[in-house]
Amino acid sequence: VTPKAGGWSRACFVGLGIGIKKPFTEVIKANIGDAHAMGQRPITFLRQVVALCTYPNLLDSPSFPEDAKKRARRILQGCGGNSLGSYTASQGINCIREDVASYIERRDGGVPADPDNIYLTTGASDGISAILKILISGDGKSRTGVMIPIPQYPLYSAAISELDAIQVNYYLDEENCWALNVNELRRALNEAKAYCNPKVLCIINPGNPTGQVQSRKCIEDVIHFAWEEKLFLLADEVYQDNVYSEGCQFHSFKKILYEMGPEYYNNVELASFHSTSKGYMGECGYRGGYMEVINLHPEIKGQLVKLLSVRLCPPVSGQAAMDIVVNPPVPGEESYAQFIKEKESVLNNLAKKAKLTEDMFNKIPGVHCNPLQGAMYAFPRIFIPSKAIEEAKAHKMAPDMFYCMKLLEETGICVVPGSGFGQREGTYHFRMTILPPVEKLKILLEKVKDFHIKFLEKYA
Amino acid sequence: VTPKAGGWSRACFVGLGIGIKKPFTEVIKANIGDAHAMGQRPITFLRQVVALCTYPNLLDSPSFPEDAKKRARRILQGCGGNSLGSYTASQGINCIREDVASYIERRDGGVPADPDNIYLTTGASDGISAILKILISGDGKSRTGVMIPIPQYPLYSAAISELDAIQVNYYLDEENCWALNVNELRRALNEAKAYCNPKVLCIINPGNPTGQVQSRKCIEDVIHFAWEEKLFLLADEVYQDNVYSEGCQFHSFKKILYEMGPEYYNNVELASFHSTSKGYMGECGYRGGYMEVINLHPEIKGQLVKLLSVRLCPPVSGQAAMDIVVNPPVPGEESYAQFIKEKESVLNNLAKKAKLTEDMFNKIPGVHCNPLQGAMYAFPRIFIPSKAIEEAKAHKMAPDMFYCMKLLEETGICVVPGSGFGQREGTYHFRMTILPPVEKLKILLEKVKDFHIKFLEKYA
Repeated sequence: VTPKAGGWSRACFVGLGIGIKKPFTEVIKANIGDAHAMGQRPITFLRQVVALCTYPNLLDSPSFPEDAKKRARRILQGCGGNSLGSYTASQGINCIREDVASYIERRDGGVPADPDNIYLTTGASDGISAILKILISGDGKSRTGVMIPIPQYPLYSAAISELDAIQVNYYLDEENCWALNVNELRRALNEAKAYCNPKVLCIINPGNPTGQVQSRKCIEDVIHFAWEEKLFLLADEVYQDNVYSEGCQFHSFKKILYEMGPEYYNNVELASFHSTSKGYMGECGYRGGYMEVINLHPEIKGQLVKLLSVRLCPPVSGQAAMDIVVNPPVPGEESYAQFIKEKESVLNNLAKKAKLTEDMFNKIPGVHCNPLQGAMYAFPRIFIPSKAIEEAKAHKMAPDMFYCMKLLEETGICVVPGSGFGQREGTYHFRMTILPPVEKLKILLEKVKDFHIKFLEKYA
Repeated sequence: VTPKAGGWSRACFVGLGIGIKKPFTEVIKANIGDAHAMGQRPITFLRQVVALCTYPNLLDSPSFPEDAKKRARRILQGCGGNSLGSYTASQGINCIREDVASYIERRDGGVPADPDNIYLTTGASDGISAILKILISGDGKSRTGVMIPIPQYPLYSAAISELDAIQVNYYLDEENCWALNVNELRRALNEAKAYCNPKVLCIINPGNPTGQVQSRKCIEDVIHFAWEEKLFLLADEVYQDNVYSEGCQFHSFKKILYEMGPEYYNNVELASFHSTSKGYMGECGYRGGYMEVINLHPEIKGQLVKLLSVRLCPPVSGQAAMDIVVNPPVPGEESYAQFIKEKESVLNNLAKKAKLTEDMFNKIPGVHCNPLQGAMYAFPRIFIPSKAIEEAKAHKMAPDMFYCMKLLEETGICVVPGSGFGQREGTYHFRMTILPPVEKLKILLEKVKDFHIKFLEKYA
């Protein structure tokens, strides 16, 4: 099992030792996409609705807006005994699945979405794990292969290893802004066919840790490839609201699939995932999420529901939070002005920080950073001198792990080595979130710069 | 994968057909331990604290009591950025794990509990699945065997089947009020050794679906057996607050283990589970829970934390709810009087309904029901005439499934057939919750009685 990116920070703190004086006053956890922990404020409307659902006496309070009360009443009506404390259907509350379906239809310009294909989940991870569990089977050469991007988000390698499936790597093209190239998919698939049965293709768009936003053309190519090779598509789209670069736009796999015509949308199996944790809400702690699964064989669907029913239901306050993500205030509603102000403030800030981070990294000698088109991470490539590589080897550490440990020890900045996500042999990276407030982020980037220059000098 | 007890209700509703007129006006879901859905009111204090954590503006509101605000502030201080929206450590928020440890110490008369051994979980099911995942290994004859009571709660059989472990049944003694007999444990273990490697012993106390409360002597015997046979003990103690019968008392495995002396408490590995879902709170939807694991080998502990980190963290509002379960108002605090009134009202009502249910079932010819000493279910044994058994066979149904389907079709009452939990060959049971309000429960029991008498007549 590969540890999650967050697990790395604990490892770091252990590595730091207790009571030893360090040349910094504060550890900055830039290792995990945990917005509120970095000072981002919750969206008021979302919290108002969840508080109203939690303690319905507040429905009589004049200090809560009517549109929030309306949402809360609707959610409570979907709960047994009108209580967040009741179990819901394993698939989630009906009216919230309806809201998710409407959201998808609006997002995708009217492409129909069926609430029956929506499953509310305990964060996106839970959905991804469940789908993989259902799809993986076979032994030896017939064992299911799961294609994942390299670099990847470590949930995938962890789930694949836990389920004893075969991880099939396809490499994103760093020289081309981490684009996904179908020739590379084909290479990976053909090689994998010799030792397993590749059945699943995972896509992360916008990318984590790489931050690229896929073009419409690229998505069409991937869908055609999946159709041709009969691959089940998993589209991890949790950063769908996090797109910053000019000229970039989020296209859902579902929408493009539909627009490619019935031969495609009647045949390609697709699961796509969303979450309350990212976007402009950053509500990681609620463990809310949904997946939409299309063209799933009815028998497999029965198995999926059975599997999900073992964990009874997703947390109900997370379901409520998900409802507000897909059903926020609309123009004309009392809370709209404040909502849109808060939303835009978060997203504009992230866009500013994405640009700032790219620019500052690219000013450091021996560092190259692709544009952060979306998501909330930078994944710069770093030059590590051969003397440092040797010293890392002497410490039985990956060179980028050695680099990140040194960075932490000298600056208090916690980032995740590229080897935790996978990277081309001989290249080194780290992942850093852009979540700290702008002023703090600037200081942090300056510190990384100073550290890197000294590091290059030391090991020259 | 065996469906959960709740899954059965959906199967029923499908079985009922849509639009066909039925001889009842309402379906009564007595199939699942879902207290709020059956009309039980949440504990005010718990919801106040969770609402305050959700929307901290309320900390300035004069309509919330100070003791609730104090709890909320403490929980928020344990959260990154003081927000329920941040990820927590995979093991859960530190100060809540401290509160859990203090609770266990108070409950167990001072037996020490270490917060480091406490893991907050997504309901008890999540903890049970995680521990089983860590403990199961091997192939063929060396495959891990997991001993579970029959009748059992279907989470166990589902998890065992999902993990490809070997289910080793030991039978509870129905003639002796569903007691656990160590001779039967020994029989099951010895037989299992021929085809697997039995390493884990699961206990449910108070029992689900059987409602027995284990005596101190019985627990001592089980612990001695586990020590002798080097079995890992899983103690499912989620009904620890649900004890009704005079002369019965809940004893935790941890406490008895400690009192048996260092030879036992330094050696026996034990995981025990608790939850927000049962007790007097009935907060199933929050998916809150904890497990305490003692004597776990440090390497295995490392694996457990790694495994838990894949799902990032348990839902934070569930963690907050768990905190109030273990840290409720105490005498002298503003909310104490209301809290204790609400708590006792729920528990006294359940005790009344436990007795009522036992008495009414035992008045029905061909039905025998053991005392409901604890938990929240009756599991009566029902006589099914051989003519009915034949008709069930013709429908390719288990006889008790046939019985429960008929009960549902004729009365609208949804209960779960004993075959969903396991029972001795040739005996038939069903599980019914005692959660409906007293007046409704009386009507329900009268309906079951009328149905049963007519059923006996029809198939005489």
